[in-house]
Formats: sequence, structure tokens, C-alpha cells
Amino acid sequence: MDALAKVDAYWRAANYLSVGQIYLMDNPLLAEPLRPEHVKPRLLGHWGTTPGLNFCFAHLNRVIRERDQNMIYICGPGHGGPAAVAHAWLEGSYSERYPDVSRDAQGMRRLFRQFSFPGGIPSHVAPETPGSIHEGGELGYSLAHAYGAAFDNPDLVVACVIGDGEAETGPLAASWHSNKFLDRGRDGVVLPILHLNGYKIANPAVLARIPEDDLVKLMEGYGYRPHIVSGDDPGAVHEEMAETLESVFDELADGGRLPMIVLRTPKGWTGPREVDGLPVEGTWRAHQVPLQGVRERPEHLAMLEEWMRSYRPQELFDAAGGPVEEILRTVPDGPRRMSANPHANGGELLRPLVLPDFRDYAVEVKSHASSPTEPTRVLGGFLRDVFAANPGNFRLMGPDETASNRLSAVFEATPKAWDAEILPTDEHLAPDGRVMEVLSEHLCQGWLEGYLLTGRHGLFNCYEAFIHIVDAMFNQHAKWLESTRRIGWRRPVASLNYLLSSHVWRQDHNGFSHQDPGFLDVVMNKKSSVVRVYLPPDANTLLSVADHCLRSRDYVNVVVAGKHPVLDLMSMDEAVGHCTRGVGVLDWASNDDGVEPDVVLACAGDVPTLETLAAAALLRAHLPELRIRVVNVVDLMRLQPPSEHPHGMSDAEFDTVFTADKPVIFNFHGYPWLIHRLTYRRNGHDNLHVRGYREEGTTTTPFDMAMMNDIDRYHLVMDVIDRVPALGGRQAHLRQHMADTRLHCKLHTREHGEDPVEIREWVWPY
Amino acid sequence: MDALAKVDAYWRAANYLSVGQIYLMDNPLLAEPLRPEHVKPRLLGHWGTTPGLNFCFAHLNRVIRERDQNMIYICGPGHGGPAAVAHAWLEGSYSERYPDVSRDAQGMRRLFRQFSFPGGIPSHVAPETPGSIHEGGELGYSLAHAYGAAFDNPDLVVACVIGDGEAETGPLAASWHSNKFLDRGRDGVVLPILHLNGYKIANPAVLARIPEDDLVKLMEGYGYRPHIVSGDDPGAVHEEMAETLESVFDELADGGRLPMIVLRTPKGWTGPREVDGLPVEGTWRAHQVPLQGVRERPEHLAMLEEWMRSYRPQELFDAAGGPVEEILRTVPDGPRRMSANPHANGGELLRPLVLPDFRDYAVEVKSHASSPTEPTRVLGGFLRDVFAANPGNFRLMGPDETASNRLSAVFEATPKAWDAEILPTDEHLAPDGRVMEVLSEHLCQGWLEGYLLTGRHGLFNCYEAFIHIVDAMFNQHAKWLESTRRIGWRRPVASLNYLLSSHVWRQDHNGFSHQDPGFLDVVMNKKSSVVRVYLPPDANTLLSVADHCLRSRDYVNVVVAGKHPVLDLMSMDEAVGHCTRGVGVLDWASNDDGVEPDVVLACAGDVPTLETLAAAALLRAHLPELRIRVVNVVDLMRLQPPSEHPHGMSDAEFDTVFTADKPVIFNFHGYPWLIHRLTYRRNGHDNLHVRGYREEGTTTTPFDMAMMNDIDRYHLVMDVIDRVPALGGRQAHLRQHMADTRLHCKLHTREHGEDPVEIREWVWPY
Repeated sequence: MDALAKVDAYWRAANYLSVGQIYLMDNPLLAEPLRPEHVKPRLLGHWGTTPGLNFCFAHLNRVIRERDQNMIYICGPGHGGPAAVAHAWLEGSYSERYPDVSRDAQGMRRLFRQFSFPGGIPSHVAPETPGSIHEGGELGYSLAHAYGAAFDNPDLVVACVIGDGEAETGPLAASWHSNKFLDRGRDGVVLPILHLNGYKIANPAVLARIPEDDLVKLMEGYGYRPHIVSGDDPGAVHEEMAETLESVFDELADGGRLPMIVLRTPKGWTGPREVDGLPVEGTWRAHQVPLQGVRERPEHLAMLEEWMRSYRPQELFDAAGGPVEEILRTVPDGPRRMSANPHANGGELLRPLVLPDFRDYAVEVKSHASSPTEPTRVLGGFLRDVFAANPGNFRLMGPDETASNRLSAVFEATPKAWDAEILPTDEHLAPDGRVMEVLSEHLCQGWLEGYLLTGRHGLFNCYEAFIHIVDAMFNQHAKWLESTRRIGWRRPVASLNYLLSSHVWRQDHNGFSHQDPGFLDVVMNKKSSVVRVYLPPDANTLLSVADHCLRSRDYVNVVVAGKHPVLDLMSMDEAVGHCTRGVGVLDWASNDDGVEPDVVLACAGDVPTLETLAAAALLRAHLPELRIRVVNVVDLMRLQPPSEHPHGMSDAEFDTVFTADKPVIFNFHGYPWLIHRLTYRRNGHDNLHVRGYREEGTTTTPFDMAMMNDIDRYHLVMDVIDRVPALGGRQAHLRQHMADTRLHCKLHTREHGEDPVEIREWVWPY
Repeated sequence: MDALAKVDAYWRAANYLSVGQIYLMDNPLLAEPLRPEHVKPRLLGHWGTTPGLNFCFAHLNRVIRERDQNMIYICGPGHGGPAAVAHAWLEGSYSERYPDVSRDAQGMRRLFRQFSFPGGIPSHVAPETPGSIHEGGELGYSLAHAYGAAFDNPDLVVACVIGDGEAETGPLAASWHSNKFLDRGRDGVVLPILHLNGYKIANPAVLARIPEDDLVKLMEGYGYRPHIVSGDDPGAVHEEMAETLESVFDELADGGRLPMIVLRTPKGWTGPREVDGLPVEGTWRAHQVPLQGVRERPEHLAMLEEWMRSYRPQELFDAAGGPVEEILRTVPDGPRRMSANPHANGGELLRPLVLPDFRDYAVEVKSHASSPTEPTRVLGGFLRDVFAANPGNFRLMGPDETASNRLSAVFEATPKAWDAEILPTDEHLAPDGRVMEVLSEHLCQGWLEGYLLTGRHGLFNCYEAFIHIVDAMFNQHAKWLESTRRIGWRRPVASLNYLLSSHVWRQDHNGFSHQDPGFLDVVMNKKSSVVRVYLPPDANTLLSVADHCLRSRDYVNVVVAGKHPVLDLMSMDEAVGHCTRGVGVLDWASNDDGVEPDVVLACAGDVPTLETLAAAALLRAHLPELRIRVVNVVDLMRLQPPSEHPHGMSDAEFDTVFTADKPVIFNFHGYPWLIHRLTYRRNGHDNLHVRGYREEGTTTTPFDMAMMNDIDRYHLVMDVIDRVPALGGRQAHLRQHMADTRLHCKLHTREHGEDPVEIREWVWPY
């Protein structure tokens, strides 16, 4: 057998196994004529993209063997799950991961039956699939994942098949430009294979229908060297693909522009040409299951059998049902198999970060809440040294906001990655930089996911409102992590860490469109086993939280911390204790002396915490007999019952902190309903009154923003007067004074364009 | 003055007004030397992009006048708010909308002072800005908005300035391909102006730094005819721009490929060249406020004055402070002014949809819950006739899912828009189709927003899980609507209607990655004045809801309705009554006979409703003495207090339906916490037990999905047994029977690959 005949045999075997997965629950080798009861009652899967995916697998395997190439495969059309599973089974890694699905007839039966079957495996390329770091259910992220995997992996080729449907999405369209952020001297490479099979679910795909001249220009414009492989005759396309791959891998070695391949083959290639008089192969009708009536209609059953036998299974599998020796010899060895490459199970390669002692970066706090610091600027110093201590193992992502978020100290350790033209006036740009700045939250997220899933570490800093741009990507990554927790062979990876700065309360430059703290609500819908939310109120708590997050595994950590100066609330020792507890009483701001208070002033988030402290100071000055407890929440998950989240406080703990029956005025960073959602089962919930962002805002001063949403100190005092029975409504005068003071602030602001000095310069105590 | 000198004067005037807005609160005409107290204390705004935006305004005005061109202007870099405001003031429309900001010295003082000032106007192009349909705060959507505005507006040119930062985003990168969906015979045109000023906030922009040859190929690959205008000498660039616009508008008339312009000018053009020894003009330092210390540092104050005087204001404004006659003569007339074009205040042009009587499409229901129908297929017939009755006034958007969502009947009225190659095997494609299918939720959303904001109607049908892709776009559109409600001259536009089909409970083909009902949680964070959520449980209620949504204005309506067969619950008369009430008791399923029940079985969503009905049937069969009330919720907002949402039920109404003290088992379509969030203040909340999606799922059968999340009929019966005191725990036998039945179903499914026939074919009664 010559090389291409072997590739063809591998391809036919993979196609056979793919069709088998979609259709059969028994008789896997067609040892007997196909009968209706061999066919699954529900036919669920996607055939259309599958033969093309198998074609790429087969050809790339040849390159891997011939060049001893380290390569992984990212399958953009992840709905082509049968292909990735067939490939892993042929390579033997499927049976290594799942011994009951052995590489023999009985294993093949299980392989077929389990696919898209209750109690079996998903129909898509999924965390369960060996060799995958990419689910592909929600389209758009394959190429960003591929680049993320290639960063800091100098020997790796990341082959990335992009479906022509996916190529219409925004994130994918932007991802082509990732080549401007890849350093050929330091990173691996990405080989994009744009697989034009012509159709999406029900429509032609744009890139398949524009003039080829446009397509070539588009790819050249994106900075690639395009190669076109096209046809429907397997023999001819095999030859063309093999030759093209030779050129492409030679070009990859030459260090110039990255090559890419346009592969034009029919949708549902080698499947039924026509069904019931309508064309199927080469049309959208091949997208899912080309023959639907197989159990009921004998002619469809016969077509299925004919289709499967067209791959000549008797040449492909031996008597025991395993692949024949000729096929096995085409499979790369051990970890060179794409289905067993450790880069695709990144936890296998994970090296813990070397972390400097975060306490060394502490802000000195001589007295509580009396000096201001920009928390993210302090964090920048810590991150600088994280970079310095972890070359090739850490990246910082941001949509052009790293400096704006005051993390610029990192540039002392590493520049920003930039592989396009650099002008003399530019600063901190170099091809081998490791701060990734691109004005695309999608790329930041996709690159980081790819980087993490291949066993490295990172942090994504973003404007709070615009992190919603990647809500859907977050959802998919969280689901990936949720699934991997059930999969023993998936080793833990570093957590995906978000730093949301430039938050809702400080959009002085931008206003209403930049105000949205709702990402927390999105995050809370995912499983408690993978999500964590932290709201450190000052610089020292931010350092402690950041250290914790960078050490964690398999989570999504969301940290909300402002870039503007806030008062330093606690010493580093106090901060560590406070963050460890997650929720704590600020004794120095409270006057309940450990007995039951009259009111609890709770807070979470930097700006709400400052307003709460100011309210406590006002109350202590005006109503010294009122017993006040000030509680700060750093770890939002502590509010939930332990049945809902592993961090959850018991009801007894909750009552000890918040009381079971006293009024709690909770000043929250985000939308107030989130606090109710987390606490509705608590004893004291009926006494809980939450202030937060209620979608009021514009371009105005920070204190005016607080007032617009009633989270300001004066309104909190009014809330206490309104809700504390012990005050018996006797404080009408103080209440009016607070209302007057608010009005004064509002008028001052509108006249002078800034908050009154007593607001801007307030420190504890009153 | 020759034509270009006039354009230059207009440009200088706009630049002067822009700088004034950013800096001054007094002395607008520099009638006296500038003093610190003339300068705002907080300098907030974005200068960098502004002179380029003004340059485009000035040149496009010339074209409008010379060609009597109907044109609107979409400002991608919306942070360049000073430009759009300056333009509207020069054109007079600002003073028409806001008479206190008159076109004279006093008005100019107000214009300057109000900008980015407490109590004033936002720093971005915002709903408050005349002539805008695009905020631009969150970057990425300008070009999609532009195409949406052009659809079905045959005489309109939509000029769209795209910042080079925005051009890095995914949605924008995909939007270039919108030209394949534009019919030159039926639609208007878009003129993209890619404004390369070289930098984002703190970094160079990718498209500004790739070789020009690549950039040209990229634009040609996208299908455009690129024209490059480049320079920093105003005189030369004026000439080049004017000549280019002549060519471009000639090309627009020739009907071939759309032209586009690449405009390369320095960031912060005409501003300070250097500040404190560092280059500013032409660098990222010009992004926001180039001179920051104006109040404190006399040399900065002097530079500001010199900068402003460099525009020669004495030539631009007359003694009264209005624009001089030469500038006024460059301004187009009346509605031809881009700041007053009615297309940019679409409500002025809104024609109500001609709606067929939705009752005519009713499914006949002979008895409750005994026959199945695919609700979206029925809706498809209604939408077909909506299309037929409203040519040019209605579009349906979908990411390649219209057929999958079973709305194919619409193709009887109009094909899918497709202006690329069409093959003989294709179906329902034509350049003049009005069903928009592209595999980009971003484009669907962006096009629809542009279409609605220019006064037309539409519906976006989408997989439920993947609507999260446009969470951030939804947020921005909802904020736009929230803001317009406070702006008297903004006329109401048609609501943005979502139909979320292929929902969490029926992802038989796809599994876990396709299961996410959390968009509802995102929607609920926006103001109650603009958001509505409907969960019609069957075909007739879906028709009633759809009719209501298509008639509404200024809302975002979210309708969740499955495409799979569900039982027909009610006749059309019943459906109309039920939808009008929003929440109702299903009398025929209840046996409480109008007295207080022992338990309330509440439900919202099609699949949860069917399971609830089956549970009610089981309970009535096994525990006939138990008084059950079945309540269905169509309008989710009804659950909130009236203080929170205008649809909210009073507590008295709520207690009448749900009781104040009886157990309520609420079976919900989405994440269960949402129901708690909506009801936590209700009397009966402590007795409310919610079932919903709790992030469990895979590729499996529909009933197995229900069981995985405990929303199935058997588990609901167990819930009732566990929570109804009247049963006194005496039903251990029935409870065990339910648990056994669940296990039987699970085992059956895993053996046979489908749900037991008694599940698949269940109809009311038991």
C-alpha cells in the first residue's frame, strides 16, 4: 500500500465509524445484513462536516509521522463529534481513556451505541472527547483557541479546522488577525484549515459563495498565504491535499507569513447522493442525518447498508473488529497522537505559578480608612513580578485597557505582544511581549481559554460593563469545566481569572452605556462547583484575593475591584484574615461591642463599602446610642446556604454575623436582586433591605452616581431611620437633614461640576 | 470662498466647538483671555477621534447639498460625542430640539458647559444627540447598524465611520460581509469610512499597522472598492477627500460593488503637537483630553487658548455667537441635515404593521391538552402573512435557524436575502428576500436594531442558549430605549422582539453546550419600563403573544416558545383571555373548585407546563381528595410587585391566585432563582418551591432531561407529597411508586434510546 492508499484507508475507516455512531446500536461490523433493530430509534448527529474532518485527521496523521510533528487538532465544527471520536478510537487513545470501549468488535458496538444516546456521550466534540480542548457547540472560537494554545508553545502546530458556517461569526472573523500577536521566535504556529463544504444548517455559507479571487484576497489581507485544495474525487483530492501539506509545512518552517488552507469538499462527502429524489451530498440536506426513515423504510435501510459497505469495512477491520495492521501503522506513536497529545489535556503539563509573597506588596495602613490607594495599581506591582517569575507560563489579556486599569507596572517585566509595524513613538510593544492587548473581548477570552486549557495561567482584565460581550463564551467555558469534573482523566487546569475594573460606579468619562454590573448574575447561574466571585474593598484585600485566585484550579474567578483611589481599610494581616473568612465584621467601624446590634450595615464592593462606612460614621456621630454593626462581604458565595455553594455559611454562622431579626441595610456593588437571590432562605431575609445599581446613570460625578441609585451615605442613614424600630421614627429631624444634605450635594455638583470637597476628601471617622 | 474653503471653515468651527465642549464652562467665544475659572474642574471627553469625525461631517454635508442626497451618519467611535453635538448645533437642529441651547453665544456657553457635566449630557454620541441612531459606547456594531438602516430604504446613503479600534472587534469584522445581504435594487447603500487614526486608547490599531497592500486586499476580499485618503496637511486632505467623495458617489450610482473609504489622519489632528515634551497629536496620548492641567498650570491654559484660537473663531462666529453666513450656507436644508434626518429618529417614519387577525391561525382545540402541535410552525403561517401584508416594513432575522425553528412558511411570502452566488439546488434564496439568515447573532441583532431605529419592524428568532452571544448588545439597546423615554423628541419605535426557540429542554441533538435559559436573567436587570418576557405554553397562546408584541413600541419583548410538538392547552378564546391576564388558573386541570386549594402547581414555559399538568393528573388519580390548583404564567413580569414592574400583580391579586400560605410548587422554564427574585416580597414566598434548570444536561431524551433537573411529573408529585401538610406524610407508598417509575423511565431510556411510550404519548387526563 502506498502512503496515500493508507491515508485513504484510514479515512474510510473513520467515515465508517462515524456513520456507525450516528446510526447503529448493534451489528457494528455488518457481520449480518442490517435489520431495523440494529438502528437507533432516535437518529441524532451531524454527518455533513464529518467526512471533511476525518479527511484532515487522516492527512495530518501522515505529516505527524513523517515529520515527527508535535500537533493538536482543534475542530471548529464541533458538531462533527463522530469524527473526533472515531479518530481517537482508531488511535487507541479512546480505549485507553475508556477501557470498556475497547478497540475490537465489542468496543465498536459500544462506541456506536453510546453516541448521542441516553447515558452515553454527547453528539459534539466535548470534554469527554480525548484530544480536544474545544467543544465547538457554540461557533466562533476555534481560531482564538488555537492561537491561545500556540502561545508559548514553540514546537507546537495547532491545526484548526474552521467550518464555513463558523467563519461567518464575528469572533472568528476577528480571530484571523491573531497572527499580529504571535511571535514566530517564541510561540508555536497555527495552521488554519478553512473547510468550505458550502452550507450551514439550511443555507449556503458566505465564504463558499464569494468569488475565489475575493476569498484569496481576504486571506492575504488577513496576512496569510492561502492554499486551495478543492474537489470531490477522493483520489485527486488526496493527492492535492498531500502535496499542499508538504508545501505548507515547508512554509511553516521558513518563518514567513503563516500559510492557511482552503479545503473545498462536498458537504456530506461520500454519503448518499440523493434521498427520495432530492440531492443530499453537497447540499445542506447532508447537515445532520441524511437518511431519516431507516427503521421504517426498507429502502432507506438498504441505502444505509450500501453506504456503510461502500467504505469496504472488510478491508479496514480484522476479524476481531480492530483496525487492520495497515491502518494501525498510519497512527502516530504515544503522545504524538493528536488524540493523546498532552497539550490537549493541559492539566498534564500544568506547572504551578511561582508566586511572589503578595504580602510584600502590601499598602501600609496606619489607621483604618484614612489614606487612599488605587487598588489595581498595587496589584500591577504584584503582577509584574508574577510575569518576571513565570516566563512562558502566564499572560495578561485586556481589550486595550491594561494601562487604563492602572496595571502598567507589568510593562516593567514584559511588553505588549505586537507583531505588526512599530513606530518610534510607540511604547512597550514587542513581538515577544506577554501582555495581550486587542480591542476584542472575544479574542482576549478565546486566547486565554486556549492558553489555560493547554496548561498555562492567566488573567483577563476588562471594563465591567463590556465583559458581557463574552457572556456566552464564559458560559461555554464554565460548562466545559463543569463537565471535566466528571471526567477522571481530565487533569485540573488553572482557573480563568477575571479582573473587572473600571466598574459601574466610576464611569466618570463614559456614562450610562458603560454601567452594567450584571456579569455577576450571569456567573451565578453556573454550577457552584466552578464559579467564585470576590469584591475586595481595598488594595490589600485585592492582593490577597488575587493570590488566592492564581493558585486555584478549574474555577472561574471573578474579581471586581476599582482602579480609582479608595481608602485603605485594613492592614495586610487584617486583609488576609478577612479574605479567608470571606465575610467579616469591621469592628473598628462598629459600636455593637459584640452584643446584638440595632442595625447591620452590610456592604460588598469598594464604592458601596466606602459609602457604608461614611453612613456608619454619620450614624455614630448623630445617634451615638444606636448600636451599629458594619459587615463587609468579600466572597459573595458565602451568602448562600452551604447546600448551594461549598463556600456557603451555615444558617448559624449567617445569623451570628447578620443577626436573625435585626434590620440589615445591604449596600451592594451590583444589581440588588442578586443579594436577595443568594439569601432568600436565610432567617433574617425579611429584614434585609438591599441597595445597589438600579439602572440609573449618566456621565456625572462619582457621588452623584451613588445618589442616583440611593447607595450614598446619606440615603443609607435615611434607610436606617426608616427601618430600625428602636429609633421609633423619632429622627425626623436627622432624616430631613440627610435629605437636605443630598440636595446640597446635587446642587453643588451641578453648579461646580464636581462633588463637594467633604465628599471627595472624606476619611474615617466622620 | 470656494467650496473647500467653506468645508474647511465648517470643519474648524466644529473642531472649535468640540474643544470648547471638552474644556470650557464659560467664555465660549474667547471674548476675553482664558482664565482658569473658565475651565471645567473635571475634564472628561475624547478628543482623539473628534477632528476626523468633524472632517467627515463637513465633507458629507457638501455632497448632500450638491447631490440633494438623503443621508444619515453613523458614528462608530461614539466616544467622539463632541463632534456629533457640534455638528447638530451648527446645523441648527440642536437648538430646535433643545431651545435653551440656542445658536448664539449664550447657547454656545450652555453647549460647552453641559457636555460631560453633572445634569448635562453624556460624553458619547447618545440618544440625546440629534441625528444619531447609534451610541457607540460599546464598540463593534456601527456597520451592522448601518446596513440595518439601509435595508428597505432605497434612496438612503448610510455613511458609517468605523474607528480603527472598533475594527478589531468581532462583530465589526463580520459586518463587512453584510454586503452579501444588501439588494442594490431594493435597499439603500452603506458607505463605510474606515477612519485609521492609528491608535486605540493606549495601543496602535491593527488595521493601521498592517501593510497597505494587505489592507486593500482585505477590503477587496470583503467585496468593496477601497479608496484611500491619507495625510495630515488639511488643505491637501480636503482636496483628496472631496475628489474621492465625487468618485465614491459616482460609484454608488453605478450599482456595482460598494465603494469604501480608508481615511488616514492623525489622532487628535489639529490638537496640541506636544505636551510636556511628549508627542500628543498623532499618538494615543490624544485619545481623551490632551491637556490635563489647564486649571493649575498657566502654560497649559495658554496652550489651550492658542489651540482654540488656531481655528480662528472670529472668522467662524458672528458677533452674536452664531455661525457666520458662509458656514450656514454649507448646511443642508431641513430634513436633509444629517442631524435632522427623520431616518435617525425612526419613530417619525414608523408605519404600524398591517397585521392579519391572529385568531385566523388558531389551532382548533376540542379538548384541553389532548392533541399536539408545533407552536412555532403555527406562528410561521402568521408571520408569512405579516410579510405579505407589509412589504418593506418587516424583516425576520435568524442565525441560520429559521427552518430549524419551523418558521419555514415565511418562505411562501419572501425568500432569504442572498446577494452572492446562487446554485440550482438552492432554495428560497434571492437578492430581494426579507428573511435574513447569517450565522452571526451579532449581525442579526445589529441589523435588526438598525432597521427598528429607522422606523421599521422585525423579529429575531434564535436558539435560546446562543442569544447570550448578544447579551451585551441587548444591554446597549435596552439602555438606548430607557434613555429615549426621557427624551421628548425621540418618537417611539417598534419593539425589538426575540423568539427563543430550540430551548433548553429540547436540545436532543446537541446537549449541554446548547442548554442555557439565562438570557431571561440578563433581561430582568434592565428597567421594567422596557422589558417584557412571555412564555406561551402552546400554539394559540404563542399567536396571541406574538400579535401583542408586534403591536408594541419601545420594548424588548422576549418570547420563549418551543418548536417541538406540545399539547394544545386552550382554545383561541381561552388563550386570548389567558394572555391578557398573563397569569391564570387552568380550571380544567384544577379541582379546588374555587375554594382554597391544598397545593398550587404553578408553571411557566411549555415543557414545564406539560410536566405540571401530568403531575396534576397523577395527583388527581392517586389522591383524589387533594385539592389542587394549576396556575400557568405566560407573562413573567406579572409575578413582580406593581412597584417593580407595570405588569406586576398587587399582593391581593397574587394571594388570590397563589394563596398566601399554601405550598406552591413552581415548575419553571429557566433557572429557578429567577422566580424567587421576582417573588421574594410576596406573602407566600416562604411556601414557594421552585423547580427549573439547574445546569444538568447532556445529549439525551426530553424526559430524561426533565428528570435530570427534577422538573418531571413524578418528581413534582414527590415534591407535593413532601410539602403538603394536609397529606401528613402518609403517602410514603405513592412517593416510592413515583421514585420507582422515574427509575423505570431512566432504565428504559438507556436501554432503548427513547422515552417510554407512555411519556411520549401522554395526554390529559391521566
